[in-house]
Amino acid sequence: MLRHAHRFARVFLALCGLLASLVLLPALAFAQATDPLPSWNEGPAKAAIIEFVHATTDSGSPKFVPPEARIATFDQDGTTWVSHPMYSQVIYCLDRVPAVVKAKPELKDVEPFKTVLSGNREAIAKLPKQDLYKILAATLTGMSVEQFSAEVKDWVATAKHPRWDKLYTELTYEPMLEVMRYLRANGYKTYIVTGGGQDFVRVYSERVYGIPPEQVVGSAGGTTYGYDKNGKPFLTKDPKLLLNDDNAGKPEGIHLMIGRRPHAAFGNSTGDRQMLEYTQAGDGARLAMLVLHDDDKREYAYGPAQGLPDTKVGTFPQALYDEATKKGWTVISMKNDWKRIFAFDQ
Amino acid sequence: MLRHAHRFARVFLALCGLLASLVLLPALAFAQATDPLPSWNEGPAKAAIIEFVHATTDSGSPKFVPPEARIATFDQDGTTWVSHPMYSQVIYCLDRVPAVVKAKPELKDVEPFKTVLSGNREAIAKLPKQDLYKILAATLTGMSVEQFSAEVKDWVATAKHPRWDKLYTELTYEPMLEVMRYLRANGYKTYIVTGGGQDFVRVYSERVYGIPPEQVVGSAGGTTYGYDKNGKPFLTKDPKLLLNDDNAGKPEGIHLMIGRRPHAAFGNSTGDRQMLEYTQAGDGARLAMLVLHDDDKREYAYGPAQGLPDTKVGTFPQALYDEATKKGWTVISMKNDWKRIFAFDQ
Repeated sequence: MLRHAHRFARVFLALCGLLASLVLLPALAFAQATDPLPSWNEGPAKAAIIEFVHATTDSGSPKFVPPEARIATFDQDGTTWVSHPMYSQVIYCLDRVPAVVKAKPELKDVEPFKTVLSGNREAIAKLPKQDLYKILAATLTGMSVEQFSAEVKDWVATAKHPRWDKLYTELTYEPMLEVMRYLRANGYKTYIVTGGGQDFVRVYSERVYGIPPEQVVGSAGGTTYGYDKNGKPFLTKDPKLLLNDDNAGKPEGIHLMIGRRPHAAFGNSTGDRQMLEYTQAGDGARLAMLVLHDDDKREYAYGPAQGLPDTKVGTFPQALYDEATKKGWTVISMKNDWKRIFAFDQ
Repeated sequence: MLRHAHRFARVFLALCGLLASLVLLPALAFAQATDPLPSWNEGPAKAAIIEFVHATTDSGSPKFVPPEARIATFDQDGTTWVSHPMYSQVIYCLDRVPAVVKAKPELKDVEPFKTVLSGNREAIAKLPKQDLYKILAATLTGMSVEQFSAEVKDWVATAKHPRWDKLYTELTYEPMLEVMRYLRANGYKTYIVTGGGQDFVRVYSERVYGIPPEQVVGSAGGTTYGYDKNGKPFLTKDPKLLLNDDNAGKPEGIHLMIGRRPHAAFGNSTGDRQMLEYTQAGDGARLAMLVLHDDDKREYAYGPAQGLPDTKVGTFPQALYDEATKKGWTVISMKNDWKRIFAFDQ
């Protein structure tokens, strides 16, 4: 009997072990140290991220941050996706002009619509700021929020970046998507905080970044509540700007929309300076990072920090680089820190 | 051997069952039909809530709502806490006047501060709207967001409602807190959408409602980013109103701050009409509810719907009552639908 008992005990223990392992498998898989940032080369930038996550999530750490306070904010253009040679949303607005003129033929011979319709890239690039605002107003406002979302959705599903012949949403930086996932896996709520349009980014943020629309903070206009001819209520997008979510507008927008100071912030240009500064000014562990575009082979090279070519789209001046060095913000070198840039890279 | 095998098999199965039950216990406890709304009397209001939750969370239901779209919005004053005889935040502003005058003694003899300092309740109640705005501006703006939060936190911890001699945050409606918890347990994200100040409610929303600051939408002013004498950045609260989160401002604020249409909305007055209308105008199952204050014994009675006394604080006119009946919005009778009103009620 003892022999049988032993045999059954062994079988029992083996089966219990199997059952337990099925139950514990996800936890074990999580605990196993797989690299959470496989698209990053080993170096100070990768180390800073991992050290920050450990310091703020280990309950024994003096820098522990309770889960509800774990907020991380990401600029979009140049930080999480390509923004050269021009911001994708500006391309969207230019692409929408023919449809706007079709609906309002009287605009055909009016500037700046006439120039945009001409397709003359040099002339379009030279349009003064005021003309650009006219195009933004005509293509981003005046329609219902549903109509706008549908228009953006169509564009995002078809428009391609000429250099790569890829959808703009395929030109997101895989290393940054890994950081978002890594932070979320450690209890962080991730937000986009962009100078771009809030309603624009919300259309694809969940699918592309895993960030729901309510966690997108961006430049935002007002809306006006009204009724259609059947008495159904709808919201119309107004040209009135409520939040210019750039520079000082970023911490202001973060306060308005989130109401908490981030513990981690990621940017790439002067427009992100105040967001990083505001993030770092909080108590305890804070992570502030700036992407430096120093890789014209795989993406683009612009600064003008570190002798890189100058640009008006996502300017990273030497003064910002020096400030980062002085304040302990980490500059991410695209060239050296990123093993691959896009998901479609090998 | 067979007998022993049977015995061990029985032991094995029993132990496996025990292990499995330990693993499954939380799920089973959840499935067991404990009443999720114990402070509600059986009736059409309670039934409407439960039916809505079942219809939108049962994956086999034609009205199933995917988890990410489960948004529920709650007005605050008169919907989740007492707002009579006056909105709590207005009491806060009046209570702050002595401190404001102490900091700026030149206001002592200037109206409306002089009248507020006199303590003459009748005279205070008669102050014209413009004077009230001066008091709001003086007590809600001009300081850093941290200073404001600290001032509100102090007040909330000490100020009491004279009728009950209880903290204002103790005068939240237990039945509505149960609805919030019930919705959250079923995957809903709960939001406060209040005409009151966003920064004010955010101070206590997590503790009192289980709603984090980033899920509070309210009337909101701008802030200005600046630096203190040590170069540390901070945000100052501006008197400029960005969002008047009342009436049509509620759907506009919901779009700005959430970017999704709610599936359930709760209010109590004309200020909530558009939020309910906007909620109901979406596809599929929608829940729209209005609290009617018809219980002067346990709380207050005001309408003027259904012959209740008229009021300027949380007006519920007969036209709104008729609209609710016509559109299938559920009117919650405090008197009949709520078994108890406050957590401290027996």
